[in-house]
Amino acid sequence: MPNSSSSLSSAKPFFAHPFDDDKLKEECGVFGVTGVTDAANFVALGLHALQHRGQEAGGIVSYHPDHDFNSVRRFGYVRDNFTKQSLMETLPGSLSIGHVRYSTAGSKAAAIRDVQPFFGEFSMGGAAIAHNGNITNADALRRELIERGSIFQSSSDSECIIHLMARSLQRNIPERMEDALRRVEGAFSIVAMTRTKLIGVRDPLGVRPLVLGQIGEGWVLSSETCALDIIGATYVREIEPGEMVVITGEKVESSFPFRRQKPRFCIFEHVYFSRPDSIIGGRSVYETRRQIGVELAREAPVEADLVCPVPDSGTPAAIGFSQESGIPYAMGIIRNQYMGRTFIEPTESIRNMGVRLKLNVNRALIQGKRVILVDDSVVRGTTSRKIKEMILDAGAAEVHFRIASPPTAWPCFYGVDTPQREKLLAATMSEEEMREHLAVDSLKFISLDGLYRAVGEAEGRNKSCPQYCDACFSGEYPVVPADMVSKGFEMKAAE
Amino acid sequence: MPNSSSSLSSAKPFFAHPFDDDKLKEECGVFGVTGVTDAANFVALGLHALQHRGQEAGGIVSYHPDHDFNSVRRFGYVRDNFTKQSLMETLPGSLSIGHVRYSTAGSKAAAIRDVQPFFGEFSMGGAAIAHNGNITNADALRRELIERGSIFQSSSDSECIIHLMARSLQRNIPERMEDALRRVEGAFSIVAMTRTKLIGVRDPLGVRPLVLGQIGEGWVLSSETCALDIIGATYVREIEPGEMVVITGEKVESSFPFRRQKPRFCIFEHVYFSRPDSIIGGRSVYETRRQIGVELAREAPVEADLVCPVPDSGTPAAIGFSQESGIPYAMGIIRNQYMGRTFIEPTESIRNMGVRLKLNVNRALIQGKRVILVDDSVVRGTTSRKIKEMILDAGAAEVHFRIASPPTAWPCFYGVDTPQREKLLAATMSEEEMREHLAVDSLKFISLDGLYRAVGEAEGRNKSCPQYCDACFSGEYPVVPADMVSKGFEMKAAE
Amino acid sequence: MPNSSSSLSSAKPFFAHPFDDDKLKEECGVFGVTGVTDAANFVALGLHALQHRGQEAGGIVSYHPDHDFNSVRRFGYVRDNFTKQSLMETLPGSLSIGHVRYSTAGSKAAAIRDVQPFFGEFSMGGAAIAHNGNITNADALRRELIERGSIFQSSSDSECIIHLMARSLQRNIPERMEDALRRVEGAFSIVAMTRTKLIGVRDPLGVRPLVLGQIGEGWVLSSETCALDIIGATYVREIEPGEMVVITGEKVESSFPFRRQKPRFCIFEHVYFSRPDSIIGGRSVYETRRQIGVELAREAPVEADLVCPVPDSGTPAAIGFSQESGIPYAMGIIRNQYMGRTFIEPTESIRNMGVRLKLNVNRALIQGKRVILVDDSVVRGTTSRKIKEMILDAGAAEVHFRIASPPTAWPCFYGVDTPQREKLLAATMSEEEMREHLAVDSLKFISLDGLYRAVGEAEGRNKSCPQYCDACFSGEYPVVPADMVSKGFEMKAAE
Amino acid sequence: MPNSSSSLSSAKPFFAHPFDDDKLKEECGVFGVTGVTDAANFVALGLHALQHRGQEAGGIVSYHPDHDFNSVRRFGYVRDNFTKQSLMETLPGSLSIGHVRYSTAGSKAAAIRDVQPFFGEFSMGGAAIAHNGNITNADALRRELIERGSIFQSSSDSECIIHLMARSLQRNIPERMEDALRRVEGAFSIVAMTRTKLIGVRDPLGVRPLVLGQIGEGWVLSSETCALDIIGATYVREIEPGEMVVITGEKVESSFPFRRQKPRFCIFEHVYFSRPDSIIGGRSVYETRRQIGVELAREAPVEADLVCPVPDSGTPAAIGFSQESGIPYAMGIIRNQYMGRTFIEPTESIRNMGVRLKLNVNRALIQGKRVILVDDSVVRGTTSRKIKEMILDAGAAEVHFRIASPPTAWPCFYGVDTPQREKLLAATMSEEEMREHLAVDSLKFISLDGLYRAVGEAEGRNKSCPQYCDACFSGEYPVVPADMVSKGFEMKAAE
Repeated sequence: MPNSSSSLSSAKPFFAHPFDDDKLKEECGVFGVTGVTDAANFVALGLHALQHRGQEAGGIVSYHPDHDFNSVRRFGYVRDNFTKQSLMETLPGSLSIGHVRYSTAGSKAAAIRDVQPFFGEFSMGGAAIAHNGNITNADALRRELIERGSIFQSSSDSECIIHLMARSLQRNIPERMEDALRRVEGAFSIVAMTRTKLIGVRDPLGVRPLVLGQIGEGWVLSSETCALDIIGATYVREIEPGEMVVITGEKVESSFPFRRQKPRFCIFEHVYFSRPDSIIGGRSVYETRRQIGVELAREAPVEADLVCPVPDSGTPAAIGFSQESGIPYAMGIIRNQYMGRTFIEPTESIRNMGVRLKLNVNRALIQGKRVILVDDSVVRGTTSRKIKEMILDAGAAEVHFRIASPPTAWPCFYGVDTPQREKLLAATMSEEEMREHLAVDSLKFISLDGLYRAVGEAEGRNKSCPQYCDACFSGEYPVVPADMVSKGFEMKAAE
Repeated sequence: MPNSSSSLSSAKPFFAHPFDDDKLKEECGVFGVTGVTDAANFVALGLHALQHRGQEAGGIVSYHPDHDFNSVRRFGYVRDNFTKQSLMETLPGSLSIGHVRYSTAGSKAAAIRDVQPFFGEFSMGGAAIAHNGNITNADALRRELIERGSIFQSSSDSECIIHLMARSLQRNIPERMEDALRRVEGAFSIVAMTRTKLIGVRDPLGVRPLVLGQIGEGWVLSSETCALDIIGATYVREIEPGEMVVITGEKVESSFPFRRQKPRFCIFEHVYFSRPDSIIGGRSVYETRRQIGVELAREAPVEADLVCPVPDSGTPAAIGFSQESGIPYAMGIIRNQYMGRTFIEPTESIRNMGVRLKLNVNRALIQGKRVILVDDSVVRGTTSRKIKEMILDAGAAEVHFRIASPPTAWPCFYGVDTPQREKLLAATMSEEEMREHLAVDSLKFISLDGLYRAVGEAEGRNKSCPQYCDACFSGEYPVVPADMVSKGFEMKAAE
Repeated sequence: MPNSSSSLSSAKPFFAHPFDDDKLKEECGVFGVTGVTDAANFVALGLHALQHRGQEAGGIVSYHPDHDFNSVRRFGYVRDNFTKQSLMETLPGSLSIGHVRYSTAGSKAAAIRDVQPFFGEFSMGGAAIAHNGNITNADALRRELIERGSIFQSSSDSECIIHLMARSLQRNIPERMEDALRRVEGAFSIVAMTRTKLIGVRDPLGVRPLVLGQIGEGWVLSSETCALDIIGATYVREIEPGEMVVITGEKVESSFPFRRQKPRFCIFEHVYFSRPDSIIGGRSVYETRRQIGVELAREAPVEADLVCPVPDSGTPAAIGFSQESGIPYAMGIIRNQYMGRTFIEPTESIRNMGVRLKLNVNRALIQGKRVILVDDSVVRGTTSRKIKEMILDAGAAEVHFRIASPPTAWPCFYGVDTPQREKLLAATMSEEEMREHLAVDSLKFISLDGLYRAVGEAEGRNKSCPQYCDACFSGEYPVVPADMVSKGFEMKAAE
Repeated sequence: MPNSSSSLSSAKPFFAHPFDDDKLKEECGVFGVTGVTDAANFVALGLHALQHRGQEAGGIVSYHPDHDFNSVRRFGYVRDNFTKQSLMETLPGSLSIGHVRYSTAGSKAAAIRDVQPFFGEFSMGGAAIAHNGNITNADALRRELIERGSIFQSSSDSECIIHLMARSLQRNIPERMEDALRRVEGAFSIVAMTRTKLIGVRDPLGVRPLVLGQIGEGWVLSSETCALDIIGATYVREIEPGEMVVITGEKVESSFPFRRQKPRFCIFEHVYFSRPDSIIGGRSVYETRRQIGVELAREAPVEADLVCPVPDSGTPAAIGFSQESGIPYAMGIIRNQYMGRTFIEPTESIRNMGVRLKLNVNRALIQGKRVILVDDSVVRGTTSRKIKEMILDAGAAEVHFRIASPPTAWPCFYGVDTPQREKLLAATMSEEEMREHLAVDSLKFISLDGLYRAVGEAEGRNKSCPQYCDACFSGEYPVVPADMVSKGFEMKAAE
């Protein structure tokens, strides 16, 4: 695959911040709609609501009987690309799907070729697919497909699916998709379309979310419920793990083409990835996070004057912590709402102010106070250190970190961008070592059981058969990451 | 002045949202620094921190003995324009000032000509000025200056100052500036520069803020303290109402060239304009707003299940209301952080979803609850209605609005973009009429005395000689808005 | 294939002028170089010299052992895209190929996906190809390949070659290319590259040109010699019809993998496509065109005062006509050198000035004169009419058209963009009918034999076995255009 | 004046080529029209036809009673800016003027502020002016105006005019313009407009051209007649030296407000600046240039095989030379028509190919031949050297240069961009020294008398009272260049 720069857009790089490295990154959001006029407009709105799942690029495909398939793929935010009347008019039709993405860690450079939905022209017509998740045997599949004459256009693992479909001997596209997905390992929540059908599929473990909604006579598929709200659609149900739905006109057909397994939904969706106004498994994400704060206050109480969230993701847990502990909640750190991902620090000399571009301490409030800082997670620990320094500079008497997730000690291979294992602070340090490293007065993570309780598992984690995928905390991977293992990744020894 | 489109930039319009109409808009932020290497980089950071004071456009001027004055003025956010190494290198020197602005209501179209700082070449050298505020006799001054042969380049009231300076007979620029400002009525906080001097001035009433900071051996002038924090400068003091400071190298000279008056700082800076992490008159803006919430809970209690802020500006008052009332604080409305000012609703058919693009109700939380919504102000009432509808659609049992400012019944003429008086809800309706109009279970504004108490005036407002400019609430204008009066604006009859 | 708009570039349409329709359009130029530092810079220069062969878009691929394959493809002129240091630095390495293209008539909209070189990743490594010509059985091949699981990314006929190569069972890329090209019918002059090899191939008829040059220790392949001149390379020889050269380091290996046929080079390359400073078959293109003018003056003399070229393509023939006839040569029509392909007539009301934007009559010179206008060809006749009107408006006494090619009565299917047959003036009218249609005093085309004499065939055209492909004049197609015939195109009945 | 970068456009620099340095550059073209619907469209076409007079930037102002004055000023070609329907719709009205410009040698960087037309708002209404020429006492005027309180917005000499007008005590704009222009020295052909009037003025010497045309009921002012042709206007007459015409509706009023002087039209307009299809003083520019070739063949004959123009400006003289000498005319040098001003040579290593990007030798034609090269002028001699080398590399037996103007030994201060005197080859070398420097077999310039004969002065140049301004050849400046003299420029000693 040549490194390509086919457009002006790709010449404009999207720089991640040093302090943005300190979060895990959901890699994708998917959305599709059928049965509405100008479906692509709805997809644009849906993707806007899912922007937190992928900020680097977005794409929309639509189909209209008189205008065939049309596709627009762009770097940048949905609001900056898919909002111009003139552009949206190039995407006519009542059937449309879309995708937002964050770049994979490994890729050398952003390329428009890697932006989904991907499209394939088959002998029975075209199909487009948008994939959230990650195929853990993609390298092996790619090698095999190239050997047999397929030409890949992107560096994306998801492109395998379209080539497997192209080579299937099945007579229609949904069956070809089943064929293809049976060869695929890992996590996938897929929204796809043909000239007449909207298709949704979820891998047997159901690692990534996918929900079904209804709008008028039409149907919607979305990564999260918050994107149903924005278009005024009503929530119907989740697509089940291992389920495929094929929507033709008003008819929704459901099947379960894969071997059944016990579901293992990603618990980190509750902790950080999903939007707080989404509902997962019937639970408010916001309420789950607030409950994490409550559990954390019980597990790791401390005397202090203020409970402050690290904005914005620590906010619900901080509210819960404050309510459980009775210590007043306060906005000790203010976020600059005009901060964008594209801010480039002007010069070397100023670069080390880093996190100040994004956050500022509420100095008058903090001075002389014992402060509890609630954050959602600690990944590399780089931002945590900087925030602690800002708080101390402002005159805080004590700084106590409370983290709304267990220590992140293992990389995710199911559609999340994580640093290599050795970069994860918790992979090499104990909790006390981390506290020393961050030089704070105390540091406590919620326990794995506490987290399970917060998501509604009153008994905590079922050790022999965990209810969720929590590999990033536990190192117990529900699917062997075959490509990574063949590249030398060492899995945790069985206990 | 011809309507000009001198650049691609100006071809890209910045659309205000219908629901953005429902806030008063600060029109400008100013920032200047001297005595640091690559001063323009510091100005860029400072303006980034002041972006909430003006999002439409920004400009920076710098001076270097070998490269003369250099200037860059652009539409759009600071982070999108003033962050490229190649651009910043065109602004060399250790002395620099900058400006961010929001467009004035009356101007037909955005024009790069109207973006400050303004520059004038005088016989003793050049000077650049950046102005926050509004000149209330600008029309009369402009007519007189044109009559005498001045050629205006912009439609901005601030350009008068530079022409008045050009015609002054004084021998140096600071004295010419005094000369000019003595002719000017209204509100002005000005940061200006010559080849060797950084100058700050505040009108005798001190309507708009201006603070002095120190960074290493250098000095900083800024609209707010939050912009000192971002560059690591230390806060020294406020420039006093009616004061002019002239900074030459490390030396700061202060004078009071205008007739002394009793100061009347804008109380709305406390309510909404300034950033919560800024400090005004020695008080934390955040703490003042939280205190407003406390006062509001005392003045207008109500039984309810949840206290929810209208994000983001209602947050501190909501925290205060919750703490005083004991009713739990909750994020009932979630803000889409990827919403930008430039989002254009895709098509007519979708346009009426309006506020949903920006805000979503936390449905699972709200259902069946009695909700108190805390907002900072009600201007036209359009957004308040939409938010109320969203909350009810989500199944709330009751909706109670609590507003952290008195009814906004009069336009501001001192540097704030306000609708015409007849568009202000409170100009034509009583509180009960507004409640009916918004169709909520209750609606209460903080009293003017309550607001004064929250800003630290234990006795409330001094009716005979108010401590602040509160014309937008009281209709008592400390400076007669001469141009507006001559256009037919009717001031409140003396009581 | 979805209609795609993957980039800002593609949002900028390239409008052809009404009067540009009146030329046949060469569709491509190809260029490759190996054995020089920063080879892509040389390719950029070569493509700039070949810009007349394709103005819509261009692409360059390069290979560097440390940086792999890199590719840039853009709409617009070479000079506007491939001249920025920062861009060219993304194309490192000593081996590089490039392509310029004009859009195919049939394509709905310009798409960056259709811009060559095309790239394929095979199990033994990657290869890029750039193709000048047209594959006449591309539709059939595409159908077959899709049936077998290939996924096409473009609407280009040339993409078949890369898929055929992907499916070849040969072990190395040159042999896979032979395999692929044996399945292909039509015209092809190809420049290709692997990680170590520069490859050139020409179809057995040798319809399109391809030459070999040398630069230092390195080698060059180019559509025309003028592109050797620009980089200071020396001309070595033409690639022979049916020849494949594989250049590895300094070594050039030649083979003839196809069944030998009698060559049929495109005679229109002499008339119009190639640049006058190129050398084809050892003959100066300029001199051939001047000689056409000489033949034309002999075949179709007329009394007149001035011989004027229709600029710029008629110039050499006009010089020849003047020299043979003794009638003075003059610039009766002046071309606006700032005319670009992207000029859009401002408004409907002005649109009918058409050709005036590009050409102006030298009024003072023409007035009262009998004028001979020499043009290279008549396609639809639309421009000829307008030029005649301009000449008469300027007061010419008589207008005589002399055309440096025979009547263009048949479309080309070998890599030239021609109107459908019914749009060709000569397809439906006799010479006298055309004269009446154009309303000129006389109209004469050179005879087919005269044209053959001018290109050096003293005996004229060999009717039983023509020395050139002259299908556009004669309707005798050396390769059956299979796809077109299956779409209903009727070939000329055998005589 | 701060160096400004107010727009994206100005971030895109326009590089002059090294080999473009070798021409004198006309600095401006002006055009205005009244009495037609959508006048700005006509101005765009007129400026397109005048693009050869200034390629760096262009501007258009229009006036419509309902929409006031509107203005668009842009860097780049007319065809790239003033052709979009959406842009042209921002310039409504039946009265419009425009300007194209080349940057002045002295300016540090291109700035949109320097692009004309300039606009001034006076107490009796606005006026816009577009100026071709140069004000030789602009520095002194600027100093005086600044001293008195004027603020300059550009670095252009032309801005003085608008400030002088602003300070005039006259009651209407035409009279204020007279007032202003009486203070001004140098060359000016001005097109200006008020809300109701189109105004044209020419300085008393009439150095730069300006013509009057008619279109329907409307009137046109243009630098050259070729711009009348493009909009279908008929030529009426030249504006006379020292004349001012004020056009109100259909009425044209003429006056002569300046002290009468003997006209001294710029003879270089005939040699190079004006387009060959323009008519000046009743003479075809093309025919004058052909006649220069005839004179040159008589004055400086030489035995040779071919007469070749240096394209494109040497073409008419080469035709004349060939016709007078009987030596065949041939296109020995081919110009790349896709060469633009913005081409930046890719890398240092390739930079020295210079002129090859633009010109290529017709190798097959030149080989072994004695070649006469006809060029319009020799300025620095840099291009002449490169062309000679290309010709010799291609195998020419002899190279003879014939130059269609006398040696250019003095800079122009009347609106032409010339190098400093010491950079002019002819300022420091005799004809024989230049021949040696260029290393050609012979080099001959036309004599000053020969040039005068070619423009129709049968007796040649009137030494005591020259009919034209020929200061660039003779050093006899009809207006003392006051600013330059005060900067140290030494005029030729009186003989």
